[in-house]
Amino acid sequence: MAEPFIYHRRVDFFETDMAGIAHFSNFFRWMEAAEAALLRHLGIPMTDSDGMTDYGWPRVRASAEYHDAIRFGDELELRLWVRAIKVKAVEYEVKAYVMGEGEPRHAASGKMTTVYVCKPTTGGPMKSLALTPAILDKLAPLADDVIS
Amino acid sequence: MAEPFIYHRRVDFFETDMAGIAHFSNFFRWMEAAEAALLRHLGIPMTDSDGMTDYGWPRVRASAEYHDAIRFGDELELRLWVRAIKVKAVEYEVKAYVMGEGEPRHAASGKMTTVYVCKPTTGGPMKSLALTPAILDKLAPLADDVIS
Amino acid sequence: MAEPFIYHRRVDFFETDMAGIAHFSNFFRWMEAAEAALLRHLGIPMTDSDGMTDYGWPRVRASAEYHDAIRFGDELELRLWVRAIKVKAVEYEVKAYVMGEGEPRHAASGKMTTVYVCKPTTGGPMKSLALTPAILDKLAPLADDVIS
Amino acid sequence: MAEPFIYHRRVDFFETDMAGIAHFSNFFRWMEAAEAALLRHLGIPMTDSDGMTDYGWPRVRASAEYHDAIRFGDELELRLWVRAIKVKAVEYEVKAYVMGEGEPRHAASGKMTTVYVCKPTTGGPMKSLALTPAILDKLAPLADDVIS
Repeated sequence: MAEPFIYHRRVDFFETDMAGIAHFSNFFRWMEAAEAALLRHLGIPMTDSDGMTDYGWPRVRASAEYHDAIRFGDELELRLWVRAIKVKAVEYEVKAYVMGEGEPRHAASGKMTTVYVCKPTTGGPMKSLALTPAILDKLAPLADDVIS
Repeated sequence: MAEPFIYHRRVDFFETDMAGIAHFSNFFRWMEAAEAALLRHLGIPMTDSDGMTDYGWPRVRASAEYHDAIRFGDELELRLWVRAIKVKAVEYEVKAYVMGEGEPRHAASGKMTTVYVCKPTTGGPMKSLALTPAILDKLAPLADDVIS
Repeated sequence: MAEPFIYHRRVDFFETDMAGIAHFSNFFRWMEAAEAALLRHLGIPMTDSDGMTDYGWPRVRASAEYHDAIRFGDELELRLWVRAIKVKAVEYEVKAYVMGEGEPRHAASGKMTTVYVCKPTTGGPMKSLALTPAILDKLAPLADDVIS
Repeated sequence: MAEPFIYHRRVDFFETDMAGIAHFSNFFRWMEAAEAALLRHLGIPMTDSDGMTDYGWPRVRASAEYHDAIRFGDELELRLWVRAIKVKAVEYEVKAYVMGEGEPRHAASGKMTTVYVCKPTTGGPMKSLALTPAILDKLAPLADDVIS
């Protein structure tokens, strides 16, 4: 199993809710932020346009399990794995740890499947696309599994 | 299969992202809003406190699949089913439809498992609790399955 | 002084923070939602595109004062006034009231100035535009002041 | 004029809207995040509780002016000044700069007034409080003006 990509992030006050903990929906945002950090690191654009066609990575599936509370000010370590690369899609797994003085505390686990798509810049429906060789070259070395 | 609880909601501008569609994380917020509308309808508090103990319904699991784009201004119909009631937890399923002149367009599907918990009002860890008879009386008639 | 445009909205759980009240930033989102409801009511698009040029209403200025707490589940009445129409801009004022059994409780007041802009659909800088006669015809009757 | 406190932050994808830029409401969240970073740096808790009474810093006033677009992936530098310390309140000013290869680009300016408050942990209304000597000792050296 490949090493995870590591992304750190501190929990903001506006991310908490009246139960006193981070609202569960934020974990989905943090998973996407971890993916964005990975793509930036690899030089793969999260969104792109050549003026005729726009390219992007919408999610078709996302899930999470919450093991423990995440609170305001917590320093999170998000560990991101590229679990599978398919012809037109990428499957990620993310685990969130709360960092502190002792052992990192595993607080949440999740998965996301993103699809590579294009659409006309002037509007119109999205169409899924095969990952380009340039994307595959950068992403495949991190993947547990490449299905082509 | 029981009839779903229906909750309507219009997509806000701030819920869109630069891809021109509603950000995927909002569907998790709308699922929770549909649950809150159901609990309000049934007279079950989403959060409660007797000054000593606080009660609430954190999520332990949530997932979604995205079938089609949801856009700014779309009138959404969220259909919520109580799929199962367990001793300390409730399992919901939600489907989001975009309403318009023709047939409603099925845009997303999701599931959430919430757990009934309490914690001391003055702080301390959350503890899961058996659903009370008052909650069961109100929620069980809507449930496909009650496991006790 | 013209009558305000009225827009209702219930406070969501995800809009609260760990202080137990709605996070202050949401009032800016609700002001924009009230503006969007007004524009929809008048038939003025909040965003538009002819495939060559995109049109929109970014904010250049926004401010708020908070008088009283707004909580989860509160039914809000947002009262929106078109305070001034300028050649390329509109100035709004919004007051938020929490509705209940007695007198509505005035909880927040704010102002926003939006500018009418266009930009090439294929990307490029935004440019401010004079409000069109079609927009003026619809918006001016609600305005306290029209400066042309 | 005192030196500003510096806080960096990268713009997330979920912070953009369909106009292709960061939604204006996020600047209010970033201003609060800059304040939280300052208070953390100084050892002043953003929220606190002794089990009987909760302490916090709600905003009574906030405003912003937007000079230029802020986009996904932009590295922001938020410069925070403590403009005035009053008996029970603090006035902040924040300027947001987009960092890049050339000169930082000044994109937004804002102000916030926070009030120091307490409320019973078991619920009840908030009450404003005089800043404690411990808070004053830490915050006053950064302030342009202290009004006591």
